[in-house]
Amino acid sequence: MAGEIGLKDEVSGKFHPVAISTWEFSLKPVERGVDLVEKGTPPLVAIEEAIRIAEDDPEVTNVGYGGTPNAGGVVELDAAIFDGPRHLMGAVSSLQGIRNPIAVARLVLEKTPHVMLSGQGALEFALQNGFQQEGLLTETARQKWNEWNQQIRPNPDNEKPFYLSHDTICLLLRDTKGDLYGGCSTSGLAWKMHGRVGDSPLIGSGLFVDNEIGAAAATGVGELAISQCASFAVVELMRNGQDPEDACEIVLNRVLKKTTFPEARQLALIALRKDGKLGFACLKNGFHAAVYVDGKTALIPVDPLAFQ
Amino acid sequence: MAGEIGLKDEVSGKFHPVAISTWEFSLKPVERGVDLVEKGTPPLVAIEEAIRIAEDDPEVTNVGYGGTPNAGGVVELDAAIFDGPRHLMGAVSSLQGIRNPIAVARLVLEKTPHVMLSGQGALEFALQNGFQQEGLLTETARQKWNEWNQQIRPNPDNEKPFYLSHDTICLLLRDTKGDLYGGCSTSGLAWKMHGRVGDSPLIGSGLFVDNEIGAAAATGVGELAISQCASFAVVELMRNGQDPEDACEIVLNRVLKKTTFPEARQLALIALRKDGKLGFACLKNGFHAAVYVDGKTALIPVDPLAFQ
Repeated sequence: MAGEIGLKDEVSGKFHPVAISTWEFSLKPVERGVDLVEKGTPPLVAIEEAIRIAEDDPEVTNVGYGGTPNAGGVVELDAAIFDGPRHLMGAVSSLQGIRNPIAVARLVLEKTPHVMLSGQGALEFALQNGFQQEGLLTETARQKWNEWNQQIRPNPDNEKPFYLSHDTICLLLRDTKGDLYGGCSTSGLAWKMHGRVGDSPLIGSGLFVDNEIGAAAATGVGELAISQCASFAVVELMRNGQDPEDACEIVLNRVLKKTTFPEARQLALIALRKDGKLGFACLKNGFHAAVYVDGKTALIPVDPLAFQ
Repeated sequence: MAGEIGLKDEVSGKFHPVAISTWEFSLKPVERGVDLVEKGTPPLVAIEEAIRIAEDDPEVTNVGYGGTPNAGGVVELDAAIFDGPRHLMGAVSSLQGIRNPIAVARLVLEKTPHVMLSGQGALEFALQNGFQQEGLLTETARQKWNEWNQQIRPNPDNEKPFYLSHDTICLLLRDTKGDLYGGCSTSGLAWKMHGRVGDSPLIGSGLFVDNEIGAAAATGVGELAISQCASFAVVELMRNGQDPEDACEIVLNRVLKKTTFPEARQLALIALRKDGKLGFACLKNGFHAAVYVDGKTALIPVDPLAFQ
């Protein structure tokens, strides 16, 4: 499936918005983002507002408030945002105590000469800009962490930890001018090591936008996305003429070819081409794309890639 | 210039090593790395040992001990290492008090299920693995920082800071089996914001290796490299048949096309194709590539790109 709605509205002269996002919980953020850009909100603000919905929702257990903690029981958040027409980007990693890392990422984009701030430096920047520090570990998340901590003790030989969850929200949006924007936010792999940075805040791995070509984003085990610079690779393949869906599948096959692949690991990619055509692909069951095409939202279950 | 030495030695059946590195100070590290692999040292260890020379040298003012501090006067180090044949990678960012971040990056690769650790988490991991914390700010670096801090006060409106230096060591190596490896290490932009992460520890931006295709790395203003996923892009262009030097130039031209470009900013790219052919390109004067080809080392001044 892929909607191709590159045409302008004959009356208004505007493009129809197109959006694609990751996982079932992203349906509301997609609706919110599209609604805001249709009402004239600046698209980067719309991206932030949409992703805040997932960050603020304790039921979304891999993003923002209520996110899954690291091995030490501390919630550490990663996020990135990308402005296609200005080709500007902002990202934060390992941010503690701030529930809306996507908002801090946007501030990095707007207010600093840098792309990425991490850890204590990112927190200081957030606090200097009026953000409030708060506890992000919900009782539900604390209990799950406690169960893990007691049952599967961290191995002193640094054996691979158990990957429970990794459901990043990624949102790609084409606004009414036909320009492309993207954002993503996550608490990262459950029980990750303190300071572990996943793909989400790494421009090119978890998110990339080229306003002339298209946009792409990744969710799943971040290390797999990083290993093939997955989001940039999808955009580059679209630059070379590949269909968005084919581009996603080619990159997943590269990951499979180069990586010793425990069957349990998920990686999913989404793509939005400049003309509005969408693409998505994933490695295992359970992934949904939430989309806005032809004036309505839809939740699409994605079949896992037939391994090649 | 570019050496093309893809042939095996008829007698030994081994490939001739090929290496390329960044800036004048990397001549010794190139010699050391090549010498070690010729003596049978595992190539990833050779990469680490070579880069340690620059990290340990206080005269190399943008890497390791004696590196340029951040805006707060604290030395924060970034590094990454890439094993081509295993397609494994390790990286650290914003690491304080450890003079050899390249060694910690190699441990991340070997001992964790992750690719990247940052800040306090990276430091804890290093200390748990026997690294010693020490002061990295030399008196020379402290004086330079002090001059900057008094003359060009950090602007309360977050105006862009003054970019003094950014000379990352990047080393790409083809060993006697014809396999590809890479590493990089830096203290990042002088006077950067606390927690700022540059391109070096971002796989795909500062460093990428595909053992079937080639390797690439970046030095200069990291934000420029990140904006086009420069190292992965060079490798991808070589995958599509571009010459290593052309690949570097194409990516620099993409950076120029998409970025408002203050003339003072430097970005340099180096590439090593699977067959041993080298490529390099830069945006402004002063960049040298240190290479090992045809059995000898050479320091090559690189002409700035004629902007297209």
